[in-house]
Amino acid sequence: MDDLGTIVALLADDPIGRGRENPGTQLDTCYRDAFAAIERDPNQLLAVAERSGRVIGVLQLSFIPGLTRRGMWRGQIEGVRVAAEERGSGVGRAMLEWAVGECRKRGCGLVQLTSDKRRSAAHSFYEALGFEATHQGYKLSL
Amino acid sequence: MDDLGTIVALLADDPIGRGRENPGTQLDTCYRDAFAAIERDPNQLLAVAERSGRVIGVLQLSFIPGLTRRGMWRGQIEGVRVAAEERGSGVGRAMLEWAVGECRKRGCGLVQLTSDKRRSAAHSFYEALGFEATHQGYKLSL
Repeated sequence: MDDLGTIVALLADDPIGRGRENPGTQLDTCYRDAFAAIERDPNQLLAVAERSGRVIGVLQLSFIPGLTRRGMWRGQIEGVRVAAEERGSGVGRAMLEWAVGECRKRGCGLVQLTSDKRRSAAHSFYEALGFEATHQGYKLSL
Repeated sequence: MDDLGTIVALLADDPIGRGRENPGTQLDTCYRDAFAAIERDPNQLLAVAERSGRVIGVLQLSFIPGLTRRGMWRGQIEGVRVAAEERGSGVGRAMLEWAVGECRKRGCGLVQLTSDKRRSAAHSFYEALGFEATHQGYKLSL
């Protein structure tokens, strides 16, 4: 669970994440509950990248069954973050390539993700990996 | 399982879905497998709207745990279709409002969906329901 604190710190060390997360030394129980829910669900995978035993990147992968596109399984990538000092080093690309490979192994026909329209650098990154911005991503806060 | 054939026919009766689905009288086993996978997963909900016992609309709802946004659960809506002769009658709105209500009941803090950029009428529909197009939706076919 030490890693969980590092992961939450990564999620918070981001222009958009900064206002949304709570990376205190007393780790908020909301993160522990979410971590437990992810661990319980065989269709959720929380993956970290490490260098010399230190967590330097994180992403979540969800495998989603569905009827559309002839009952195609989708892999969905969420919450991609790379440690500030590691950005531009190829860690993000390696993480995404790994995630796409996992989706293939699980029989997914499609990998999808959404990226905040303010993240223009991320958009070039995903496009270089072959992702196409074919959709509008809608959110409704409850 | 009769309903499954009707649902697949609905998915196919759509300018974009037409080229992707296979709504034959011999229902493709891919749809039966996908239906079984959805039924097995307590975080997946396939919902239909009926009028006089006839299926006139469908959507899939996925409940996704995650660490970001303080461990917030997300509700995700996918594969929304309304029968051609029922479009414009308020069925879609009722289905979406029901789905958002289910997300609230399950403790989600956010509802999300993506919509193909070619579906401009759908975009006005989601925006009228309070959804904001804050994200780019990326897809990678495998």
